[in-house]
Amino acid sequence: MTALALVPGLPAAPVAALVEALRTRGETVATAESLTAGLLTAVLTSVPGSSAVVRGGLVVYATDLKTTLAGVPAALLAERGAVDPEVAVHLAHGARDRCGASIGVGLTGVAGPDPQGGVAAGTAHVALAGRAGVRTRVVAEPGGRAAVRAAAVRAALELIAGELGTLFE
Amino acid sequence: MTALALVPGLPAAPVAALVEALRTRGETVATAESLTAGLLTAVLTSVPGSSAVVRGGLVVYATDLKTTLAGVPAALLAERGAVDPEVAVHLAHGARDRCGASIGVGLTGVAGPDPQGGVAAGTAHVALAGRAGVRTRVVAEPGGRAAVRAAAVRAALELIAGELGTLFE
Repeated sequence: MTALALVPGLPAAPVAALVEALRTRGETVATAESLTAGLLTAVLTSVPGSSAVVRGGLVVYATDLKTTLAGVPAALLAERGAVDPEVAVHLAHGARDRCGASIGVGLTGVAGPDPQGGVAAGTAHVALAGRAGVRTRVVAEPGGRAAVRAAAVRAALELIAGELGTLFE
Repeated sequence: MTALALVPGLPAAPVAALVEALRTRGETVATAESLTAGLLTAVLTSVPGSSAVVRGGLVVYATDLKTTLAGVPAALLAERGAVDPEVAVHLAHGARDRCGASIGVGLTGVAGPDPQGGVAAGTAHVALAGRAGVRTRVVAEPGGRAAVRAAAVRAALELIAGELGTLFE
């Protein structure tokens, strides 16, 4: 039987280093995940000691939950669809505000196999809202559902590392 | 470098079968996860077609978020601590109500390596709130952080399968 491959190729050590860097800098993290649906938060909390820096998150898989749980304007979702860089920024702010963290991360994208609202499968938008403002990344990963989710998680970890002035590697 | 082991030993096929069973029965799922911090929801959405049945979830890693996001009474948390079967039931109801699903699942436990509030590492409480009432499970898994999180995810998948009158295997 095929085993679940949630984050192919992601090593544990840099996640532990990132959690330690968050701790030493007094930062806390919250998430609002659509595409990855909790995977980023599960990765961050796979490390002992993560409870000191991970507040929690919102899994906003259904479109209406992006509004009710994370505060993404319904008009923006109606106009642009759920996979949009500005939606990711709103998700990041919603995570930060509603979970009371210093860093909020928002992820949205198309896992595939089919495109969604004219956006190609494998596209993901990741945003970080921190004390100093917003950082964003776009992911284009044609390797299938597990690959694009893993790439979005890695992009989020890299954004968090960048916010801390370190590298995720 | 050690690779992340989020759900050791969990095969993909029964997850796909569970998502299909939810779809054919017209059920939807939402989660409120503490110990597993999004891992159950990430597992459910690792399967194509999961967007038809997974609404979303609440990752309530910090204790105060169990109250603010999922509606667990603060007095109960103060009296019993976060790792308690009744807390798991409240999490399940909070997930169901706040995410608008027919089935809510709540998970709370001690990942370790240290005990928490007098509860041994490796203990987890999982609850399901559905149309017909509540189902609960207790997990005792001494194999470490990844093992107890994986065991809690499996217990939740088994509870959902039981609610549908099927087996997770």
